[in-house]
Order: sequence, then structure tokens, then C-alpha cells
Amino acid sequence: MIKVGIVGGTGYTGVELLRLLAQHPDVSVEAITSRSEAGVKVAEMYPNLRGHYDSLAFSEPDAALLGDMDAVFFATPHGVAHALAGDLLARGTRVIDLSADFRLRDIPEWEAWYGQPHGAPELLKEAVYGLPEVHRDAIKNARLVAVPGCYPTAVQLGFLPLLQADMIDPGQLIADCKTGVTGAGRGAKVGSLLAEASESFKAYAANGHRHLPEIRQGLAEAYKGDINLTFVPHLTPMIRGIHATLYGQLTAEPDDLQALFETYYANEPFVDVMPAGSHPETRSVKGNNTCRLAVHRPGNGNTVVVLSVIDNLVKGASGQAIQNLNLMFGLDENLGLKAPALMP
Amino acid sequence: MIKVGIVGGTGYTGVELLRLLAQHPDVSVEAITSRSEAGVKVAEMYPNLRGHYDSLAFSEPDAALLGDMDAVFFATPHGVAHALAGDLLARGTRVIDLSADFRLRDIPEWEAWYGQPHGAPELLKEAVYGLPEVHRDAIKNARLVAVPGCYPTAVQLGFLPLLQADMIDPGQLIADCKTGVTGAGRGAKVGSLLAEASESFKAYAANGHRHLPEIRQGLAEAYKGDINLTFVPHLTPMIRGIHATLYGQLTAEPDDLQALFETYYANEPFVDVMPAGSHPETRSVKGNNTCRLAVHRPGNGNTVVVLSVIDNLVKGASGQAIQNLNLMFGLDENLGLKAPALMP
Amino acid sequence: MIKVGIVGGTGYTGVELLRLLAQHPDVSVEAITSRSEAGVKVAEMYPNLRGHYDSLAFSEPDAALLGDMDAVFFATPHGVAHALAGDLLARGTRVIDLSADFRLRDIPEWEAWYGQPHGAPELLKEAVYGLPEVHRDAIKNARLVAVPGCYPTAVQLGFLPLLQADMIDPGQLIADCKTGVTGAGRGAKVGSLLAEASESFKAYAANGHRHLPEIRQGLAEAYKGDINLTFVPHLTPMIRGIHATLYGQLTAEPDDLQALFETYYANEPFVDVMPAGSHPETRSVKGNNTCRLAVHRPGNGNTVVVLSVIDNLVKGASGQAIQNLNLMFGLDENLGLKAPALMP
Amino acid sequence: MIKVGIVGGTGYTGVELLRLLAQHPDVSVEAITSRSEAGVKVAEMYPNLRGHYDSLAFSEPDAALLGDMDAVFFATPHGVAHALAGDLLARGTRVIDLSADFRLRDIPEWEAWYGQPHGAPELLKEAVYGLPEVHRDAIKNARLVAVPGCYPTAVQLGFLPLLQADMIDPGQLIADCKTGVTGAGRGAKVGSLLAEASESFKAYAANGHRHLPEIRQGLAEAYKGDINLTFVPHLTPMIRGIHATLYGQLTAEPDDLQALFETYYANEPFVDVMPAGSHPETRSVKGNNTCRLAVHRPGNGNTVVVLSVIDNLVKGASGQAIQNLNLMFGLDENLGLKAPALMP
Repeated sequence: MIKVGIVGGTGYTGVELLRLLAQHPDVSVEAITSRSEAGVKVAEMYPNLRGHYDSLAFSEPDAALLGDMDAVFFATPHGVAHALAGDLLARGTRVIDLSADFRLRDIPEWEAWYGQPHGAPELLKEAVYGLPEVHRDAIKNARLVAVPGCYPTAVQLGFLPLLQADMIDPGQLIADCKTGVTGAGRGAKVGSLLAEASESFKAYAANGHRHLPEIRQGLAEAYKGDINLTFVPHLTPMIRGIHATLYGQLTAEPDDLQALFETYYANEPFVDVMPAGSHPETRSVKGNNTCRLAVHRPGNGNTVVVLSVIDNLVKGASGQAIQNLNLMFGLDENLGLKAPALMP
Repeated sequence: MIKVGIVGGTGYTGVELLRLLAQHPDVSVEAITSRSEAGVKVAEMYPNLRGHYDSLAFSEPDAALLGDMDAVFFATPHGVAHALAGDLLARGTRVIDLSADFRLRDIPEWEAWYGQPHGAPELLKEAVYGLPEVHRDAIKNARLVAVPGCYPTAVQLGFLPLLQADMIDPGQLIADCKTGVTGAGRGAKVGSLLAEASESFKAYAANGHRHLPEIRQGLAEAYKGDINLTFVPHLTPMIRGIHATLYGQLTAEPDDLQALFETYYANEPFVDVMPAGSHPETRSVKGNNTCRLAVHRPGNGNTVVVLSVIDNLVKGASGQAIQNLNLMFGLDENLGLKAPALMP
Repeated sequence: MIKVGIVGGTGYTGVELLRLLAQHPDVSVEAITSRSEAGVKVAEMYPNLRGHYDSLAFSEPDAALLGDMDAVFFATPHGVAHALAGDLLARGTRVIDLSADFRLRDIPEWEAWYGQPHGAPELLKEAVYGLPEVHRDAIKNARLVAVPGCYPTAVQLGFLPLLQADMIDPGQLIADCKTGVTGAGRGAKVGSLLAEASESFKAYAANGHRHLPEIRQGLAEAYKGDINLTFVPHLTPMIRGIHATLYGQLTAEPDDLQALFETYYANEPFVDVMPAGSHPETRSVKGNNTCRLAVHRPGNGNTVVVLSVIDNLVKGASGQAIQNLNLMFGLDENLGLKAPALMP
Repeated sequence: MIKVGIVGGTGYTGVELLRLLAQHPDVSVEAITSRSEAGVKVAEMYPNLRGHYDSLAFSEPDAALLGDMDAVFFATPHGVAHALAGDLLARGTRVIDLSADFRLRDIPEWEAWYGQPHGAPELLKEAVYGLPEVHRDAIKNARLVAVPGCYPTAVQLGFLPLLQADMIDPGQLIADCKTGVTGAGRGAKVGSLLAEASESFKAYAANGHRHLPEIRQGLAEAYKGDINLTFVPHLTPMIRGIHATLYGQLTAEPDDLQALFETYYANEPFVDVMPAGSHPETRSVKGNNTCRLAVHRPGNGNTVVVLSVIDNLVKGASGQAIQNLNLMFGLDENLGLKAPALMP
């Protein structure tokens, strides 16, 4: 049994880790920390967990306790993993960080987007970017994994086959993305109230979102060259789900776009290339770790359109974190992640 | 491996059986029938099942094929199980009927509410009402189980402790019930459109609903005497979930209502009596087979209020059907039913 | 032109006053106050008002400014009107209070439910309870009106015909009420987030809600005797709307319940008794000041069921406040309130 | 009083005409036709209209009756206006067609997209495309107006200022559009059920949608040259609203994009250019005839992003139809269209 801890367990990615790990045969959650809820049982805060974690309670973050674990997940705002990861690694505990702390390789860029000094630059070179479809081998040997953001997961998985096949202009990528409101976290904000966010649709951060540099970094690495991306996120009146609609300009007459995608992801357990002509729905991955993709070329023109859907809390966060854990500990990659999506 | 078939697999209870059985270690779905979709793969119709039932396709209903199964679920409108159950039982196949065909013991009453002759009166006396909390032993030996309706499950589980303890007036029961729209099935009806049912709330069938005689029968059996129930169902703008708000008039000064409920359900794996003062939310059982209950006595007055929530598609249909199957085949009662609710 | 001010204009009842008054031919909103948003234009905060109140901005509450108005609406938490109403009345400004400050006649009861001393007991005897269907004449001459709460409006309008006709047992009233989330206000609370309140249904305050004494007071006055009410409110995943399902026990064989209701409300501009057998939907009054009612007697039994729907922000708050203003200033009662509900 | 009729009044655009015209001081709805509902009162089908059109009932379509009107709205599927418009025009009745029958000038293109012969080619040359922001003068003198589609309205209003100023490459336009489910009409389709369309987001018709040739025609006319557009529509879990996110590639360094838009629409009563940096929400126009726009240039790069929101049933259909009627009859353009959006 692999002993794991969760730092910052009161938010949506924390409770999603608990929900998924309740079905994991080889993992035991032994510690969960929250400053604000220390002493409260998790099943008291999240009644869906009643009967599953009856003795587990939130505790104060404590390095000794966490250092006793085989692995620790950070389901925290940025900055927290910076402060604690080094100590845990020194104690032999592996770190799986769901926050943005170790996603960007460029320290000044991180500091510009997050508005504070980088707190653990010395750890950055050993941090592995936890997108298994790109970095599976490195993840297997990693001590410190930076789990990708939700938008970056959906966007990269959609663009990668085209960029690596050198089929689209890297200077004219557009990602029009839509997220459910859990993407904004569990904080009490007026804009996230049902009375405000329901029955409405809007863009936000059209002039720049923190996931932009992360996507750019990942795509540039894959392309082995500079890329230029316009990224516009939108808020959708639903709880879970991301739909990325990706636009690229073809630079060559493609052979068979459908075959390109199917071949590229032939062996991936969590990427599902749907049949030609499909329009994946976000609900087809609700609660599930799959990314479903479809590729279109409207009117046989110059623009290729990729539709990419994930559950922002699963493949976009906690499920992908567990997929990383499975790889790091030599387990079957899909342990704890087998349940079909909840539909309807 | 227990081989099962599903008759009428295109509706919501059919696909929910598939979703849940995908996680059942001892069951294999070998046949699924649908006249309208014969030849279509289930994963084509329900993309959440892609990767789970890749070869399973809908077929025409066929007694020989179904008679080869160890058990067959009927996820059909009323009347279908009447026509097929006898033949299957004769072939040694056990029948778990999610429809209303074998729920009512009184044939004229069934015929009055369903507007057609009862098609299998000879099977009625061996049919077991599949509410495990009441009929567990009979279910274990049953060949034919009538899975309770969604409202009847939520209402009976809430009233039973009070009626069996003879604490409330059986002549003045009120059940104010609220359901998500999957309760109306997957048929294309204008009233179930998002544009019609969303952002609105209404009662329906205030003058009589088919679940009324079923609830009355179950409560009268438990009380061992006549009962009188006012039952008003309401349509709620959500996909899944039933919330029953139950009102009873106390006939004696109760000792400790909370303890009464906790004791009554102490050994039940799928009934969760929440702490005193709780207000269970339907989302706490989304996708899950639990019924969560809370009991209140407002202002210490004469009226007792029970709050009872289930997922109408799980404990109110497909999950309870699987719970019955587990009992009928001597398995652990919770196989295939262990995953926590999806929350948020 | 009647000059009006609004105190506390940033919440949902404040913006709803602005929305409705934009269509009122005889009223001009000249002042709106908010400590937190002073200086901000209302159309900046509420873009639906762009083009309607382009110069109106929130200002600090100021007695001189407000005292210059013909009438002032309080769309504030309780306690605020207590502090300011006396001064305004002294300046000749009429006060229409949407808060709970002047709803209860019993000061100790007010203090018990609101947890603070009553701030203006001397004004209480002249305050008129602003339910036009009961107190129309008094409202016409009032200087100070207490606009009823949302639940009290829906519940009283439903029970009044039965109680005044002495047809139901006043000791056994049940009101099972469901509200949209704007009922909880615009405050940033976790429980009101879309991710928490959507796709779920729950009861709350089953053991006592502040609207209980208000309803009790109104019904007892109408009945001219004590009444006993069990009131359970529920939160529904929608923005606007209240549905009250009311249960009474008949004490006499009724002649014709439908006719009783139709006669009782024959001359009411904002109460619509629907045809026998109807189930009013909350969306049929979305944005509109009407209360729609239907009366049922299930199975011709002893229990009468009344279904009552309003828009909690309109007939349950701001629309009713304007209806009161129209009466107080001798205008047509429906000015500013004529638009049909938004449906779908 | 202008006498109007509505053909096909049972769908969402029909009832929306009724809702809006109930507030129009100079229009009287004297006839409404529906084959399926002939004899039914409109207020019976749409209870929000109770008290507004109490004597109006659906009747069989009848040319004599309709020919008696000053104007007739067609709120019908395509093909119906083709069959009836000529006769009505001959009788001196003006025709405002909300369907696609007269939107495309190119007959073979119409026939290709709609799969049937064009039924009234002789009327096409006098049909005016009813986008007032482009064709106001022609509309004033028109006998036959083709009201634009919902997507075409949102997309054209967003691109026009840029194309007419020759600031973007006409060969690389992208319109990523999102609609509420009323865009799919009131037909009972499984895909539009709350249980299917809620809590999910998906693209549809990525390979070609009937609004594509209409948008292309309008933009090409404005640009006075060929344009190339990729148009991907998406279904959003909400009742009303369209959000168009438009992407263009700058061909020149723009002076001031904000000023360009503000100047372009300075005198338009129903186009609202929001302040720089805004993200218009669809709810800000719910029930209202305004199109709100914002223009962004992310990272000061080469891509310009326009955000455009309308209510698909108002500015995208019935409201714009009334705006056209007002122009055709020399009335104030905003009669019947003055109410602010319903928010929240």
C-alpha cells in the first residue's frame, strides 16, 4: 500500500483526489492538511465521502507527518509547494504538485505571471512536466512532478499531432477554450455564484491568462521552435468540463488528418480519438480521466479545427495527478481511473 | 462470471446499468436489446462507454439469447416484462425488472393505474419486491424481483422507522417529492427540453401519480394496517436526484428520533442516517446507491419532518437492481456500487 | 414625476428595483446609495442597465439627499431602515422597506429572530404590512410600508382563501417551499456557488426560518385566531422563483374550492387563479409581479393542496414594493409592472 | 394601431414576438396561426401571457385573414414564407420573415443548403436583408424583409467595423460561436433535453452550418470583396444567448480599435460598444434587443478578438423583427424594445 498525503485538501482538486483514490486498490490516504479546517473530518465537509474516509480528518500541515508518506499531492494555490517540496524530497517523499509552482521552466516568466519571486528555483531542473502523453518515461523516474493545468492539457493534446507532423503554421494558433465554473475554484466569489454564472456565457482574461505561457512552452518544446498562440478562455454555466476548440492553418495538403491523430494516440490509455465527423461532448468525460478528440477540416479548406474535451478536475487536475502517481510507482497507469463518465 | 442481459437498453436506466456494471468484478454484460437501435454499438450511442463495452451492440430481443443468461434486467416501459419474464424463468434465467410490472400485488389496482390488463398474473405471487432494507431474505431466494420505483424508495425508507415504531398517525402522511428530469425518461418530450424545464420548478400529477399505490402498499405492509398518504411530485431543474420531504403527525412523545433512525438502519450498507440537524443534498448521492436521511422535529412540535435523498437512476433504479442481483447470487451486496458520489 | 431614492442598491432587490423602475412612466430614480460602491455608476456594475441610467451613480447614504425624495426604498439587510426611517419620515419622505425591520408587530419576537434590539419601536405602530391583497386601503394612506418577505407572500396568498373561509384546520398547516438561489442574496457564500448549488436540491433551516413568524402573524390576523404552521424551505438550482406547496386538512366538505379561490381573487391585478387541474410553473412569472395559484384536492380526500408561484425578486420583493408605491401615490397599481414574464 | 399577424406562432420566436409586442404601444396582434394548435388560446399554451392576450387563439393559416393585416411575421420553418408571401404582398400586407427563405441572394446556394427548390425566386430581388445597422434606409421602404439569423447578426456586427476599415485579412476570419438551446427551437429532440444538454458543452456542424453562407454574403457585401470564414457553432447549457468570439488577422497597425468601434456604432440604438477591456456577458442582453461588443488585441499581437453577445430570440430573431417593423412603419425604432435585460 502506497501511503499518500494531500496538502490543501479543501478545494475541488483535493476532494476530487479523495473521490478517485477511494477506488484505488494500492493507495491509502493517510494525511490531509488544511489550516482553516484542521480537526474537521473530511466526510463532514464532503458528505459524498461518508462511509469512505470515516476516520480521516484535516490536520495542520506538518513536515514530519507528510515526510512519512511515500508521496504527497499539493492541491494548493501557487507558492505553497515552493515552500514545502524541498523538505519533503529530502525526506524521501515524492511530490506531485497540482499547482503552477513547477510548470514553467523560465523563472522570470513564472515571476511575471504570478507576481512573486520563485520560491524554489533549485528544484526546477528536476521537476518533470506531468503530461504522460509527452513525458511518460521521465515521469516514471521523477521525484517531483508538475501536473499540467487544465487548459494546457486540453490544448496541448489537441495541437500536438499537428505540430509534430509539421502540418500547421506555428505562428497562427488559436485556442478558443470553455470551462465549467469549478475551474475558478471553491473560493466564494460573486462572479461564481449560481445567480451570476448560470444562464450566461462570457469570455474572461482575453488579454492574457496564466495558462498561456504554459501552453506556449509545451507546444514550443514539441514543435522544437517558436510558436504563437492566441488563447481566449470562456466561462460556461456548468460545473465540470473543458472544451477547447483549436484552429490551425494548414501549411501542407494533409494526407489523412484522422489517421494522423489515430496513429499518434494509438497506445494512449487516456486519449480517445473519436470517429471522423464527431463532436465530443464534455459530459462524455464527466468524472473521468479521458481526453476525447475530434479533428475537422471545414469545407476542405485551409483551416483545421480540433475539438478537445476533458474534465477539468480529472484529466485537467486530480485524475492526471493519479495517472502520474501510478507511473512514478510502477503501477498500472489506469488504477483508480477506470470508472466510465457519469452520463447523463 | 455471472452472465447478464439487459432488455431495453437505450433509456437512462439501461445505460446506468452499463455504467455501473462496468465496475462490477463478477458480472459480464453479454446481451443488450433494443428494437429501435439493433445493430448499433452501445459505445456509439453512449460515448462515455467508449473503451468499456467496445464490442457490445444492441440486438433484437430474442428469448433464446436472453435465456442463455444467468439473469436479465428489464429496463423497459411497463408491459414488456409481463410478456417475456415467464419464458425466461422457465429457461432458468432470473429476472430483475426495473419497470412497474410486478410491483403491485393487487391486479385490479395495477390495471387501473396502468390502463391495460395485467399480462402475467400467474407470476405475481413469486415476485419479490426488491427493497433490500425490507425484503432482503426473500430477495436472496427470488427468481423474479420487482425493483421499486424511485419515489417509492425514497419515501418508504424515510417513513419506515416511524411507522414501524408506531410513532406517527398513519392516516395523515404527506410526501412532498422533487425529482430531477431523468425521472421523466429519455423520451423526446417538449416539457423535458432544457429550454422548458430549466430555470423553473413545478408540481405535476398532484391529483394522482402511479407511484402512489406502490408507496401505499409498501407502507401499509410495514405498518400492518391502512395508511393514508398525500403525495405531490415536483420537477426540479437538474439531471439526477430525488429529494423527499416527508411530514408525519406524532402520536406519542418520542424518546429520541435520531436514535430511532440510527438504530433502525444500523446495519444497512446503503442507508446513511446523517447527524441530527443535517439537510442532505441530492448531489451527495449523485451516481451513488446510498439513501441519505435526516430527521427533524421543528420547534419541538407535533410534526416530524424526514428528509430523504437518493439518485433516482441509482438507488431509485439501476443501482438498486444491481444490489438485488448481488443478493440473488450470493455476492457481497455492494459489488459494483462502491464509488463515492460525484461531487461537485 | 415622483422622485425616489434607493438605499442599499447593490444587492439583487436593488438592481431589480432599477430594472422595473426603468419602465415606470411616473417615477424617476434620483439617488441610490451604497457605502462599498460609492462613486461607481450603476450601469458599470450592472451592464443590463447601460443606456438606462447612464448618469446614476452610487453615493454614500446621506439623510439630506434622501430626505429630498418623495419616497425611499430600503433594499438593505435588517437594521438599516430602523436607523434611517424616522429621520426620513420627519422630512416628509415616505419609506418603503423591503427588509424585515417593520414586518413583525411583536418586538420581542423580532428581537429573538434577528438577534438584536429593535431599533425603532416607536415607528412600528404606523408601519403598514405591504401585502396589497390584504391591506390595500391602509397602504394607500401609509407613510411607512413593510414589504412582505418572499416566502410569506407566496404562502399567505395561497392559504388566505381557505383560512378566511374557515375550511381548513388552522392547527395543521404545512408549507413546503422551494426558492431559487437569489433568495440567498448576492453575498459571496460557498453554498451559493454554481458549483455547489447547481445540480442539487436540499432543504435548509428545517428547524426554523425567520419568515416563519411573519407568515404566522399574517395568517393568524387573517384567521382571527391562532394558527400552527410547519414551514420547510428548500434551495432549488435556478436563479429566480418560489414555489410554495401548501397542505391543509379540510374541516368541512367544501363546496367548490376552485370557485372559492376565483371569487376571493376576482379583482386582484396580481393574483392569477389558474384553471382547475393546473400546475403553475415558476417560469410563468419570471421577471413578473404575478402570483399564480392552483388548488387541488388529491383523490377527493381530506387534504387540500395549494400550489403558489411567484418571482422572489418581483412579487416577493421589488415588484411588490413598486405596487405599494403606486398605491401610496394614487397611481394605477400596475404601472411599471405590466411586462409579461420572460419565457422561455 | 398597426394590425399584425403571426404565422407559426407556437415556436420560440412566435411566443417571443407576443411577449415583446405586449409592450408595443402602436401594434395590435390580431391573428396568429398554427395548424397543430388551431383553436387553442395562446395564453393556455404560454401561461406567461395570461392577462395579456386573453382572447387571442391560434387559427388555421388563412390568406384572407392574414391579408387583412398591415404586416405579417413569419416565425416558421423555411419554405412556408415562400408559399405565402407573394399572396400577402399582393394584398398590400407587408411581410417580415424570420425564417431563412429570403436571406440568401444566390438561389442555387439557397437550394444547396436547404435541400429543396427555392419557392419564390421572383420575390427575391425586392427582399431587403433586415440588419438595420447596414440596410436601414432600404428597410424603411421595404415590403418584404428577411430578418437575419441569430449567428449572422452577432458575427456580422462584430466583424463589420474591421472589414469596412480594411484592417483585417478577409481570407482568414474565424467565428467561434456559442448558443443557448433555444437556438435549436421548440421541437422535441433528444439532444435538446435538459438531461442531455445540461452540464455539457459541445460543438456541432463543424463542417458546415446553414448560417455560414448568410454570414459570408453579408460580410462580402460589406467588404466589397470575397471573404473566407471558418464558423464553428457550439451548444451551451443555457436557455438564451449567443456569444460570438471573432478572430481576425490585422493587415495594418491599427490606430485605435476601441475608437474605431465606438465611432462606427455611435448612432446605433441597439449596438453597445463596451469600454476597453470588457467581456460582455450574454445575460446582460437576456430578453433585450441590444448587441454588446468588446474588442481586444491580446498581447498587442497580430490577432484581433471581438466579443459579441446577443439574445438569440431578441436581436437574433423577434426583437430585430420588431425593430424592422418599426422602421417599415415610420415609428421610433425602439418601440416595444425598451425594457432592460433581466439580470440576474
